[in-house]
Amino acid sequence: MEGKLLGNIIEKIREKNPIIFHITNLVTINDCANITLALGASPLMSFCEEELEDILSFSSALVLNIGTMDKSMRKMAVKAGEIANKLEKPVILDPVGAGASKARMDLVTKLIKNVKFAVIKGNMAEIKSIAGIKNENNKGVDSVEEFENADDIALNLAKRLNTVIALTGREDIVTDGKRIAKINNGTPLLGKVTGTGCMTASLIASTCSVEKDYFLGATVGVSIMGISGEIAESRLTEGQGNSSLRGWIIDSIYNMTSETFNFKNQIELNL
Amino acid sequence: MEGKLLGNIIEKIREKNPIIFHITNLVTINDCANITLALGASPLMSFCEEELEDILSFSSALVLNIGTMDKSMRKMAVKAGEIANKLEKPVILDPVGAGASKARMDLVTKLIKNVKFAVIKGNMAEIKSIAGIKNENNKGVDSVEEFENADDIALNLAKRLNTVIALTGREDIVTDGKRIAKINNGTPLLGKVTGTGCMTASLIASTCSVEKDYFLGATVGVSIMGISGEIAESRLTEGQGNSSLRGWIIDSIYNMTSETFNFKNQIELNL
Amino acid sequence: MEGKLLGNIIEKIREKNPIIFHITNLVTINDCANITLALGASPLMSFCEEELEDILSFSSALVLNIGTMDKSMRKMAVKAGEIANKLEKPVILDPVGAGASKARMDLVTKLIKNVKFAVIKGNMAEIKSIAGIKNENNKGVDSVEEFENADDIALNLAKRLNTVIALTGREDIVTDGKRIAKINNGTPLLGKVTGTGCMTASLIASTCSVEKDYFLGATVGVSIMGISGEIAESRLTEGQGNSSLRGWIIDSIYNMTSETFNFKNQIELNL
Repeated sequence: MEGKLLGNIIEKIREKNPIIFHITNLVTINDCANITLALGASPLMSFCEEELEDILSFSSALVLNIGTMDKSMRKMAVKAGEIANKLEKPVILDPVGAGASKARMDLVTKLIKNVKFAVIKGNMAEIKSIAGIKNENNKGVDSVEEFENADDIALNLAKRLNTVIALTGREDIVTDGKRIAKINNGTPLLGKVTGTGCMTASLIASTCSVEKDYFLGATVGVSIMGISGEIAESRLTEGQGNSSLRGWIIDSIYNMTSETFNFKNQIELNL
Repeated sequence: MEGKLLGNIIEKIREKNPIIFHITNLVTINDCANITLALGASPLMSFCEEELEDILSFSSALVLNIGTMDKSMRKMAVKAGEIANKLEKPVILDPVGAGASKARMDLVTKLIKNVKFAVIKGNMAEIKSIAGIKNENNKGVDSVEEFENADDIALNLAKRLNTVIALTGREDIVTDGKRIAKINNGTPLLGKVTGTGCMTASLIASTCSVEKDYFLGATVGVSIMGISGEIAESRLTEGQGNSSLRGWIIDSIYNMTSETFNFKNQIELNL
Repeated sequence: MEGKLLGNIIEKIREKNPIIFHITNLVTINDCANITLALGASPLMSFCEEELEDILSFSSALVLNIGTMDKSMRKMAVKAGEIANKLEKPVILDPVGAGASKARMDLVTKLIKNVKFAVIKGNMAEIKSIAGIKNENNKGVDSVEEFENADDIALNLAKRLNTVIALTGREDIVTDGKRIAKINNGTPLLGKVTGTGCMTASLIASTCSVEKDYFLGATVGVSIMGISGEIAESRLTEGQGNSSLRGWIIDSIYNMTSETFNFKNQIELNL
């Protein structure tokens, strides 16, 4: 079976206009807001611990992105995850640069211990760090390394943490520990735009806010980013570069229909 | 009388190049800076309580936007407003998501108690929250709901708080409690770009820094955003979406002359 | 001698893909990340004091930009500079608005006292403030004033602080206290985009991460921004303004080759 009928998730987002609550990093926060709007959901960002209950009560999903964590964010993220769990809203973890410092790894460990995640999305360096596998070439936040055994690493981690793992790379892998999706959308140019990973987490939160099967939701979210990267690359004109690519990525999601998605996705589902 | 001669405010901004001090939210801070530059003013952002006196002494207006308030911002915002009042610089309040949490409402209440605002700009959900009117459909920060009695709500609030209320919506309403302006510029697409509300506050601060009649200043500021939205929408080419719209909004203000403004504005002034 | 062979620094960056660690301001942080990627380096931003050692250990340069300093950033910046010194990584100071408040000047003074900078980059108001020269027309962060004796001011400050001074203005001046480079690239339009100064610091950090002669590195970094400004201006089409200019600046660096640089730079080197 292939992912040819999954595009209806996009239509559902546009019908329901769910609020996606972000506790996220300061580098890419504006792009995360605009890509959430592009997909038909509504972004809401907060740095105020006191309002977590109020805001989560009317939100449909929560993104926790640790990219620019500080003291206050670390405390707030755990609490937000716990409240979201209690309210049964899906929580997406983006463990940006998990392997880059002990402080980041400590926060990720604490989050995983205290919060049940619907989806954990990361590149190979991040997922390996969480899985406790030594990285040889840890360049921090921009890992696009090739790797072997990606399937096994993702599958085992998903089983162990009882979550969906979305492992992004040349080929993206999404798994809930039983089912695996392999996604061959995308372009290496995505690595030249800051925040495409963060934006992917916003997309996954949006899809999982309307699709209770988070494995399918994450698969669609990851694939939307890949497809938009392909469209964006094809739209670049002479003299344009990574800044224009950033714009075209968001624009192409704004214009993406379920038909576009169903036609363009390169999802291989193994159920 | 109509707003056909108000465009000279734009020229005044470009002549005087006033500094617009922002204590503002982290999602849209870059767009607020660039739109301020586009209009001919100079943005200055700070997160440092110790420098408020120094910076306000040479600033021409202050924007307080609570969108991503944290502990330190809450304290700083009140103090900044008080200093600006003492120095007789206009202060613009953007009560982002005022109804979305008790914490936001508490800050807005505290600000209104301690600071005299030149203009309070908000959407219907925000203005209703400040007016103490129950919102049925509070979707937080992106309210574009239709409403009845908008005139009355804005008029009464302006009178009660002795300020100018700029209520944005399908039709924008600006009132000082006696005079009312109704503005029919704009496009629903503005709601698909994060921060168009925040940017409107930057525009209002810029206009009020050169026009002491804040009712007129706010009317022009709100109308500039609406006109730029119309121009931006008309410039979208095939495949472009909300990211391109964001760029065209700022670009169109960069290129806006008093003539463009006088020709395109749909302001109905009731004096 | 002229700067006709300096373009190879760009190739080196693209070969080595150095990580540029930023402790930087919240207005322009996204643009700094994307311009660093455009030049072929990898940006990494942090607001977490606990991870400074870990991240600096694999970074190739550090940018300290005080534009939106708060309490925590002030402490973190000094510590980061000290660690980078210990690890012998070049540290670039961007003293944004140094003359605009006592608090900013205090931080700059503390930084200069505790950290050895590879390059201090600023506009005339900022450099004069650091040099202890009274500014008549201190408009804070956007100074583009003309000035006399710029050479002397920069030379003397470079000698006194034993660093490279990169003084940006209509003509940019870079000096290590002995050698002077004068750069006549650029366009006044750069002043209409927020963060071109901050982005220049990211470029300088990238060049100095691969070129141990920081005088040459800074000269190339400053010139890249000027050249990209020229290309960006030439690409503006009807209706485009400062938002599009911002995009073209980053895009033109993405597409800049050593040949473009060698052909277009207007560097006059006095060795």
